[in-house]
Amino acid sequence: MKLLSFDLDGRRAWGVLADERHDRFDLVDGRGLSMGRFPTVEAVLQAGALDEMAKLAARARPSLDSRQIALALPVLPGKLLAVGGNFHAHAREIGLSEPDGPTAPIFFSRFVDSLALPGAPLIRPRVSTQLDFEGELAVIIGKPAHCIDAADAPACVAAYTCFNDGSVRDYQKASITAGKNFWRSGSLGPWLVTPDALPDPSRCMLETRLNGEIMQTAPLSDLIYSVAELVAYASTFTPLACGDVIATGTPAGIGARRVPPRWLSPGDVVEVEISGIGVLRNGIADA
Amino acid sequence: MKLLSFDLDGRRAWGVLADERHDRFDLVDGRGLSMGRFPTVEAVLQAGALDEMAKLAARARPSLDSRQIALALPVLPGKLLAVGGNFHAHAREIGLSEPDGPTAPIFFSRFVDSLALPGAPLIRPRVSTQLDFEGELAVIIGKPAHCIDAADAPACVAAYTCFNDGSVRDYQKASITAGKNFWRSGSLGPWLVTPDALPDPSRCMLETRLNGEIMQTAPLSDLIYSVAELVAYASTFTPLACGDVIATGTPAGIGARRVPPRWLSPGDVVEVEISGIGVLRNGIADA
Repeated sequence: MKLLSFDLDGRRAWGVLADERHDRFDLVDGRGLSMGRFPTVEAVLQAGALDEMAKLAARARPSLDSRQIALALPVLPGKLLAVGGNFHAHAREIGLSEPDGPTAPIFFSRFVDSLALPGAPLIRPRVSTQLDFEGELAVIIGKPAHCIDAADAPACVAAYTCFNDGSVRDYQKASITAGKNFWRSGSLGPWLVTPDALPDPSRCMLETRLNGEIMQTAPLSDLIYSVAELVAYASTFTPLACGDVIATGTPAGIGARRVPPRWLSPGDVVEVEISGIGVLRNGIADA
Repeated sequence: MKLLSFDLDGRRAWGVLADERHDRFDLVDGRGLSMGRFPTVEAVLQAGALDEMAKLAARARPSLDSRQIALALPVLPGKLLAVGGNFHAHAREIGLSEPDGPTAPIFFSRFVDSLALPGAPLIRPRVSTQLDFEGELAVIIGKPAHCIDAADAPACVAAYTCFNDGSVRDYQKASITAGKNFWRSGSLGPWLVTPDALPDPSRCMLETRLNGEIMQTAPLSDLIYSVAELVAYASTFTPLACGDVIATGTPAGIGARRVPPRWLSPGDVVEVEISGIGVLRNGIADA
């Protein structure tokens, strides 16, 4: 099942993607599914009602065309965590503990307002030209988790989506928090894909394209710390709740490590595609 | 003016400290002041109503004794930012860019659930014995700020309080986000002090005591980056809102740099005192 969040008549609504063949994107509006019980995707997650919604969606008739709606962030996380250096080749390109990568996941956090909507432009700030892309898999938590083992982590994962961990590299040298939290410098989407449609994300391919040119490509089986290990480790220090997001790290090929560096500027279009999920597409605009 | 938040009949309420002489802590309950318009301190900040509340409080009669109430966090920040290495002697003890300190503020963020209530114990996690204290001044934002200059920052500061940036040092080696975000490992409080009562925090002394013994002491004039510079820098990368908190960094003397290291354990009591503000006191308990 693919769940979209979107703006409808001024409120944040949700629905299920019914048919994305042949450039048709029919959508079952969540109002029909949820009968008002679940106004948002977060409410569905909180109630553990994904399976129920999937059954209702399978019987429902498409009522909207997703090309006519404005996508919202697919989930509004209370906590948005991400990791650095979680692909070997990327860990090498940024000079991390070669050749074995970091000895523990390198977590950092982003505020939600550091994300642009899917389809909307990433914002290049006035103070820097060093806006860079990072294509990633994001994991959405569907069950509260605190101090859990990796073996129990898969049951806490509700869905997956694409993530662009957009970064301002000169500020990142001062602190990862500054470099990773510029207003609308990253993005998340376009929609959530639940495990029934994507049982094993490690079999997916991740690709980041800049104006159509492939900049990053890697199988998600190359993650140094797996999804389960990341969820368990994060839960060691912070309680995870329904709707929280963990981004799992980017492969080699970032703009900062190219010669010369390839910074994003207005006119560019970045696409993060994960097979089985979809494409997260963002232009660039100046602040 | 000193503003407290506390639990009253199961809801989060607030009030103004009316008289703290001679171990008396009379309190004007915010219900009387706000006439229901401002149920929380955040609502007062949002409405820019601090001056109005101060005038009402000056005419009101104390209606509660603060020793009878359970303190809540003095503010619930949307964003809780903090900086590392912002005192010269501390920057040296942690090996940062001696002798001049960092070239820009080193920001990180904490989730609000990483804070214990004032007076409640900090939680030592099961996975580590390396829980450490860091006494700090915290600044509370009272006006939205995005991309502002340092000259405009003082007008955006609504209040000050004490902060214990409790840290789990072995996890901090892997990532500052992990080390600084363990559940209830830090604290904030006991109350907010507005600039009318504290016009210039750089004239205050900061002292951290462990079981009564002074572990950290420094004048706040020793901050490498001033309050105004920190607010301005943070606003460069992230929009600040009413109620957001910026902790300004800790002086030398942390437990991790002592020989042997002095880790916190059950039975210890940490006090962070800032002259003109008050004392933030927390015991230690095991998870």
